[in-house]
Amino acid sequence: MTYCVGILVREGLVMIADTRTNAGLDNIATYRKLHVFEKAGKASMGIATAGNLAVTQSALTLVGEGMKNPETGALEILTDMPNMFAAAKFVGRAVREARGELGETIEQEDPGAFHVSLLLGGQVAGGRLRLFMIYAAGNFIEATPDTPYLQIGEHKYGKPILDRSVTEMTTLDEALKIGLISMDSTIRSNLSVGLPIDLLTIRRNTARIELNYRIDAAEPYFHDLRERWSSALRAAHKAIPSPPYKSHVVEAAK
Amino acid sequence: MTYCVGILVREGLVMIADTRTNAGLDNIATYRKLHVFEKAGKASMGIATAGNLAVTQSALTLVGEGMKNPETGALEILTDMPNMFAAAKFVGRAVREARGELGETIEQEDPGAFHVSLLLGGQVAGGRLRLFMIYAAGNFIEATPDTPYLQIGEHKYGKPILDRSVTEMTTLDEALKIGLISMDSTIRSNLSVGLPIDLLTIRRNTARIELNYRIDAAEPYFHDLRERWSSALRAAHKAIPSPPYKSHVVEAAK
Repeated sequence: MTYCVGILVREGLVMIADTRTNAGLDNIATYRKLHVFEKAGKASMGIATAGNLAVTQSALTLVGEGMKNPETGALEILTDMPNMFAAAKFVGRAVREARGELGETIEQEDPGAFHVSLLLGGQVAGGRLRLFMIYAAGNFIEATPDTPYLQIGEHKYGKPILDRSVTEMTTLDEALKIGLISMDSTIRSNLSVGLPIDLLTIRRNTARIELNYRIDAAEPYFHDLRERWSSALRAAHKAIPSPPYKSHVVEAAK
Repeated sequence: MTYCVGILVREGLVMIADTRTNAGLDNIATYRKLHVFEKAGKASMGIATAGNLAVTQSALTLVGEGMKNPETGALEILTDMPNMFAAAKFVGRAVREARGELGETIEQEDPGAFHVSLLLGGQVAGGRLRLFMIYAAGNFIEATPDTPYLQIGEHKYGKPILDRSVTEMTTLDEALKIGLISMDSTIRSNLSVGLPIDLLTIRRNTARIELNYRIDAAEPYFHDLRERWSSALRAAHKAIPSPPYKSHVVEAAK
């Protein structure tokens, strides 16, 4: 499985992805799922992928090496797109092509085998910083101030902390920290999500990747964050008073 | 959907269940999912149910009103069972009968429509306090000191706090508190799980229900627990230092 989260706040964008892939529980490998596409001063984007690795790798190749524009016939790559909406459609087209290339036969044998979902975040100079979730059919939704985060893959374990803590006004540093806590919760509860973790940040209206970083198991800040979060949670539930309930309905009914 | 959790610690057993059922998002109702079976001084048990309501209600009727013993022909109810292992098998048989009564036709039309899972916890005098999860086929697993909790229904949102905080040595009061935090996390992140919440506790070797209580929306302790937990989480992530990452790989490569 996989866990990737994108958080879009006033200050900028955070994207975080784990690197564990598995075909069954006994076939585990490490693959980068967070990919950076940048054209200096023009466009900065990240794509995080979940689902069938054959499809997502093919789609990433298509967006990075180019697909022919159906109208002009010219070869275009992701960072040639004039805005993020066009970029999302471009990624959607790449997903459809990748699924098509891999044939419908397998999908008929094993429905859902080619299921994928992607996060696309970034900014094209002159446009808005945006964050999209792109589905296997190529359709997509967008993060908004009401719901400033999007998740793909094994999303449930890491959702409570996002629901409680992330708003549009969260700072970029806080959003990164909360995203890492969300990732930590997922890693602790699900074997199929694992270190190392890749992350990127884009500060709004800078049109460049601010941070493109890999956290491995020995990384001291993330190790410290996990320890602090665990002990804070222990302290938090210890600080809550004990339940006052003393009624015993069966006895009370006597 | 549903969320129920059972926690078995050295001191005793906690079972907690929400009460929301839904057939689609636009057909929501409140049903008790935590049921108490007690024979004074002999046996104290709780059953929590998830999944198809027709099946779980039928199964509960069968265990409460009795099924014929296949060997002796005598009518037996759950609290007649000589030990918890026999009780788990009895509940499993009731689930199979309930599914059978409701026909295989619907299951063929809509596979999984009759899916259910149950938690059974309790103690028969002279035996051990035990906690089981019973599957739709009537087979079951048991909580152990290594994994002292079992969940049914929408279990992922509430799992991280259990993974971090519950051990066999957790006190009964703490286990109840952590179970309520786990329930709160689930309610916040999933619309299909909702108040009121039912809970029961059984203290080991007392062979009686210590607490059988319903928490509704206006209940002050649970309201306070939710507030305290939220603000403790906010304080916890604020207290973690900001990420130190400043590297920008793309620039560094220039």
